[in-house]
Amino acid sequence: MSASSSNSISSFSRPSGRLPAQLREVSIETGYIRYAEGSVLMRAGNTHVLCNASVLDRVPPFLKGKGQGWVTAEYGMLPRSTHTRSDREAARGKQSGRTQEIQRLIGRSLRAVFDLQALGERTLHLDCDVIQADGGTRCASITGAWLAAALAVRRLVGEGVLAANPIQDHVAAVSVGLYEGMPVMDLDYVEDSRCGADMNIVMTGAGHFVEVQGTAEGQTFGRPDLNTLLDLAQQGIQSLIALQRDALAEDD
Amino acid sequence: MSASSSNSISSFSRPSGRLPAQLREVSIETGYIRYAEGSVLMRAGNTHVLCNASVLDRVPPFLKGKGQGWVTAEYGMLPRSTHTRSDREAARGKQSGRTQEIQRLIGRSLRAVFDLQALGERTLHLDCDVIQADGGTRCASITGAWLAAALAVRRLVGEGVLAANPIQDHVAAVSVGLYEGMPVMDLDYVEDSRCGADMNIVMTGAGHFVEVQGTAEGQTFGRPDLNTLLDLAQQGIQSLIALQRDALAEDD
Amino acid sequence: MSASSSNSISSFSRPSGRLPAQLREVSIETGYIRYAEGSVLMRAGNTHVLCNASVLDRVPPFLKGKGQGWVTAEYGMLPRSTHTRSDREAARGKQSGRTQEIQRLIGRSLRAVFDLQALGERTLHLDCDVIQADGGTRCASITGAWLAAALAVRRLVGEGVLAANPIQDHVAAVSVGLYEGMPVMDLDYVEDSRCGADMNIVMTGAGHFVEVQGTAEGQTFGRPDLNTLLDLAQQGIQSLIALQRDALAEDD
Amino acid sequence: MSASSSNSISSFSRPSGRLPAQLREVSIETGYIRYAEGSVLMRAGNTHVLCNASVLDRVPPFLKGKGQGWVTAEYGMLPRSTHTRSDREAARGKQSGRTQEIQRLIGRSLRAVFDLQALGERTLHLDCDVIQADGGTRCASITGAWLAAALAVRRLVGEGVLAANPIQDHVAAVSVGLYEGMPVMDLDYVEDSRCGADMNIVMTGAGHFVEVQGTAEGQTFGRPDLNTLLDLAQQGIQSLIALQRDALAEDD
Amino acid sequence: MSASSSNSISSFSRPSGRLPAQLREVSIETGYIRYAEGSVLMRAGNTHVLCNASVLDRVPPFLKGKGQGWVTAEYGMLPRSTHTRSDREAARGKQSGRTQEIQRLIGRSLRAVFDLQALGERTLHLDCDVIQADGGTRCASITGAWLAAALAVRRLVGEGVLAANPIQDHVAAVSVGLYEGMPVMDLDYVEDSRCGADMNIVMTGAGHFVEVQGTAEGQTFGRPDLNTLLDLAQQGIQSLIALQRDALAEDD
Amino acid sequence: MSASSSNSISSFSRPSGRLPAQLREVSIETGYIRYAEGSVLMRAGNTHVLCNASVLDRVPPFLKGKGQGWVTAEYGMLPRSTHTRSDREAARGKQSGRTQEIQRLIGRSLRAVFDLQALGERTLHLDCDVIQADGGTRCASITGAWLAAALAVRRLVGEGVLAANPIQDHVAAVSVGLYEGMPVMDLDYVEDSRCGADMNIVMTGAGHFVEVQGTAEGQTFGRPDLNTLLDLAQQGIQSLIALQRDALAEDD
Repeated sequence: MSASSSNSISSFSRPSGRLPAQLREVSIETGYIRYAEGSVLMRAGNTHVLCNASVLDRVPPFLKGKGQGWVTAEYGMLPRSTHTRSDREAARGKQSGRTQEIQRLIGRSLRAVFDLQALGERTLHLDCDVIQADGGTRCASITGAWLAAALAVRRLVGEGVLAANPIQDHVAAVSVGLYEGMPVMDLDYVEDSRCGADMNIVMTGAGHFVEVQGTAEGQTFGRPDLNTLLDLAQQGIQSLIALQRDALAEDD
Repeated sequence: MSASSSNSISSFSRPSGRLPAQLREVSIETGYIRYAEGSVLMRAGNTHVLCNASVLDRVPPFLKGKGQGWVTAEYGMLPRSTHTRSDREAARGKQSGRTQEIQRLIGRSLRAVFDLQALGERTLHLDCDVIQADGGTRCASITGAWLAAALAVRRLVGEGVLAANPIQDHVAAVSVGLYEGMPVMDLDYVEDSRCGADMNIVMTGAGHFVEVQGTAEGQTFGRPDLNTLLDLAQQGIQSLIALQRDALAEDD
Repeated sequence: MSASSSNSISSFSRPSGRLPAQLREVSIETGYIRYAEGSVLMRAGNTHVLCNASVLDRVPPFLKGKGQGWVTAEYGMLPRSTHTRSDREAARGKQSGRTQEIQRLIGRSLRAVFDLQALGERTLHLDCDVIQADGGTRCASITGAWLAAALAVRRLVGEGVLAANPIQDHVAAVSVGLYEGMPVMDLDYVEDSRCGADMNIVMTGAGHFVEVQGTAEGQTFGRPDLNTLLDLAQQGIQSLIALQRDALAEDD
Repeated sequence: MSASSSNSISSFSRPSGRLPAQLREVSIETGYIRYAEGSVLMRAGNTHVLCNASVLDRVPPFLKGKGQGWVTAEYGMLPRSTHTRSDREAARGKQSGRTQEIQRLIGRSLRAVFDLQALGERTLHLDCDVIQADGGTRCASITGAWLAAALAVRRLVGEGVLAANPIQDHVAAVSVGLYEGMPVMDLDYVEDSRCGADMNIVMTGAGHFVEVQGTAEGQTFGRPDLNTLLDLAQQGIQSLIALQRDALAEDD
Repeated sequence: MSASSSNSISSFSRPSGRLPAQLREVSIETGYIRYAEGSVLMRAGNTHVLCNASVLDRVPPFLKGKGQGWVTAEYGMLPRSTHTRSDREAARGKQSGRTQEIQRLIGRSLRAVFDLQALGERTLHLDCDVIQADGGTRCASITGAWLAAALAVRRLVGEGVLAANPIQDHVAAVSVGLYEGMPVMDLDYVEDSRCGADMNIVMTGAGHFVEVQGTAEGQTFGRPDLNTLLDLAQQGIQSLIALQRDALAEDD
Repeated sequence: MSASSSNSISSFSRPSGRLPAQLREVSIETGYIRYAEGSVLMRAGNTHVLCNASVLDRVPPFLKGKGQGWVTAEYGMLPRSTHTRSDREAARGKQSGRTQEIQRLIGRSLRAVFDLQALGERTLHLDCDVIQADGGTRCASITGAWLAAALAVRRLVGEGVLAANPIQDHVAAVSVGLYEGMPVMDLDYVEDSRCGADMNIVMTGAGHFVEVQGTAEGQTFGRPDLNTLLDLAQQGIQSLIALQRDALAEDD
């Protein structure tokens, strides 16, 4: 059942009409919410995620008195962010397994580039709320949350609260997948639901992996496919990190 | 303990700097979410509420087979919509009493102008999600939800799903209060927290009451105060309804 | 859709057979529960609410160390207090929105006449449990809870725990509504379900408003209707406050 | 650690002042709630339990279409039924283990004398709500619930809904215990908390056991103690069943 | 409806094929889990319960600073321990009433022979998890939990943490019942579901009762039946306690 | 921060004492629970997971009437499976994010090799319960659950319920990680907690990927490290699949 790349590139066409290695159009709006220490409205095509960073003067119980900080994340989707309305998790009384899995991923991804000692005994709490969803919300959340965190940290450094920047590198994420056997970048909802396999890759500015998550969706995949997908993801993440840099510079 | 209007108008100054009877600047963006049948980003000053109307082809159990529809609402605040981060209700596993009280109010307010028979066996589900909160979120939700509902219904009529418009009149809402004994319109967060009494008034385009909710906050109020506040609210609601009309016309 | 008072008084007849401005027969039994610091069985017609006041030597976390007290309320209905059995909230695992809305109302109403500083660092916890329900349970709860609170406070003053009475005025509540366009006092269940609009009014002994809650139930209402209803409510509340006074005097 | 009856009867004195084999004063008020098909306010000393029987025209899923009925019970304590206020289970969001244990016991006890076939496809739902608690609430609940059930069933037979009485015998319950080594009847709260061992016995009118529950509380007990306690319980239950008979006759 | 022993012993046959007074084959494996301070896999026929004792250096809030310890238990069944799969309680979000009743019983039974002062300010937490269920899981849990507790305590004494053994006697439990009117020992699932009455008896090594729980299942029972069942239970428990002794000796 | 393989192989020593590419000793016991359609006690070193497959004659609502089956999994840890006791999820009232993430992974992994049409309208429910945990529980769960599923399916085929085997290939899983920069196979708890990066790989018998999950734990990793880890995982999974084959053959 492994994917074979039987499609020739000439006849290939993605549902989105994009080229195989083409990212969606990205738009980043900083300072979207006036109260958050860092706030970013991250738009990748029709996927819009509001990423807010809050600085809290406390740490979770397991870190009390250890002289270090914590970075954590919560994720949510507005009920009508999707094509058909989804139930509100607050009304159902619990977060789904998918929600918890995503918010754990966002937190781990950001902690990978944080010097938690340098953050001091405080928590950087990232809220990633999906306003409109068209696939790739977890990747957009990570890319946007890093920027919101960077803005919040810059403010703490500017105010003299922090002596040094605890963020050691960029982190961004992109999804890639095999669509009709062809590797494609940055899946939207329709592409994602038709892909035989998809991966979410989280990488640093230095090109190291933070997370690699690949899942066969009805079609297992071989090592050569995996390699091509990883190449593609690296290329996309470098572009996203360049956009993070631009947004940081403009906001300054 | 009743309020006495000891302030002379000359020396009076609201925290917001607005005139006593002045609404906040309102901005209405229709079609904000591409998937919702009706979608409105309602901004009243720094209070921003996203109101989405979903049309669902089902009714609650108690209405099954009765040949009529239902209009209901849910309300939520993003955790960082407020000055300091609030807990996420989905993470806490339940909606607060305040949330439930507000969403019941929004639902009742809209049903007051709906012909539920004319809606047929479907539910109009309004989601009011506060993106940024600076007081008056329940009133902005009602005013915005009415517009989202009107857009969704216009679409159903346009598509021939509905023969006639089931909405019989406009509905909008505003808060008024006694600030240092002086009646003021459309309270922001700072004003609301300092008011001795505040009211939320929901009215129709014809000037009839749908809901009247007045609460003494540390200071009870007399009948003359009540009358002045009701006059003020009526004036504000008429302005908001004019803005609803403009938004409907522009969206057409 | 505003109410028009097309009924002439001569032909008018309430389902209860009472006169339009007539309260239900009220019976107040103090000391009903031997353990509570203040205990009142409040009966308004077939609506019976047991109101118990407990004095707790602690305050909620947000008041710790602030040198003031708190007054709060919980409300519940026994499953068979109603015509057909309702689910037990403890078995369902959560309180309904209606329950939470009512207990918030009772708490706010009582706090409006309390000097929380004079109460010291303790909580007066009011439990209002509906034994039998025939409409108007929230109003009976407020009127009875005030009396239970007054009894508990008198005991604290008597024992020298409190130097002065922290209660500054009476509070009582009544419902009024438009039945077939005619303003009527103190709605029972049948009347409430047929009223086009109803209001719950909470007032002090001095005649000031604590809460004004009016809701159009299928029929919006105009300003003149509102004024008539407020007049009626004021008259009913004065009678209820007289009964509170009598009960306090008798219990002494 | 078995109990030794070192006390001589002459010097013995119960905290309640009652004789060892003396029941508390029992008062039974039928028809307490006007809506319930059977309603009993059961008072045993300062323990007051309101027992309401509701007839529901449905059975639990596991009995659907089996041509038989069901008898079940729920139990609750008002928050201020106890000396110091207890948390409200509906507010905590779950019923305690103790509550569930008691309501399972009440249900089992009543089903033991019911011909569920003769009941037809309906549920007899018993609600036992403790208004005031001074020990022995589960026993008072069983004794009162049986009477509420009998009243409801008599009504169904009277209305011709049931052809025959599905209740085959009386059921009543009493607690007994070893207080300072001496067997005592019908423990109140103070006695219960000081007893080395206590038992709750549920018996039929024919003198057969329905439930025998004995628990060592800090002091295990031998077979002779058990025998004495069972004798005592049987005597108390016979008295309680006589009171049930009187109440049934008076209510007729 | 009381049981009459109409069966003659000659024609009598239990579903299990065992003799009336015959226990199931018991196998006890100590040290089953390497991490628990005391660990026992208790097998009684096809009923397999894993009993683990954990020593925690804390006590529940109500015992803080009182210089004594606590013994408590939790009980669970693996979803496929039963003939047909049961729902996972963690997935349903709450423990059933039956689960809570059983774990309260296990805790009480063990506390009956513990000197909680001698345990010091620590908690002995017993986890009884049913791996495979064929009736009698609560009795197997008690018998196994006592052994797990004894192993954990012996370790604490061996390490010098405890100066003296806080366990004052053995505790074991067995079920007995009336199967077709005949008293039988140690019911398996099939027998339990067909018994007219069953009892769970918890006793000490000295032959004193800790708990006596008898329930009529469709058939009430008289005093002679009760006496026979108690005799039978005592005999079974003495055998089980002998097995506990052997297991303790072997593990040493 | 990427891992550099500075350790020379000569001086390298894993905490477990195993060679870098050495799996733990695996022991597989089939038919462990007599009731489950497929039952496997999977032991990898000190990690023991009981995997039970249940065949249910129903499908989730979203598959009703679609003529296909479903494969799903639940995962749990006994409270004392770990070095120090963990809270019981049933007692806490909800499954952790980690639990939900793992059970979603197990379900996806098995579905990747199932022909759900060939399964017919039934659900294969896998319960993976960790009896003792020493790292790698999710991988042992997948490897054991596949075997339990294969046993259950073989039984259905044998009974003629299924015409053909719906399982198209083996699936097994192993963890690999970078320990002090050196790639190591099959991490135990101590190794896992000290690894800079670890991966869980799920593969088929044909050597295709089902899931690739790599996470930087304090240390990001480069592409060469990733490649070495994938090679190692493939080797381990082939060994585990050989053990699955042996167990299937022996059970036959």
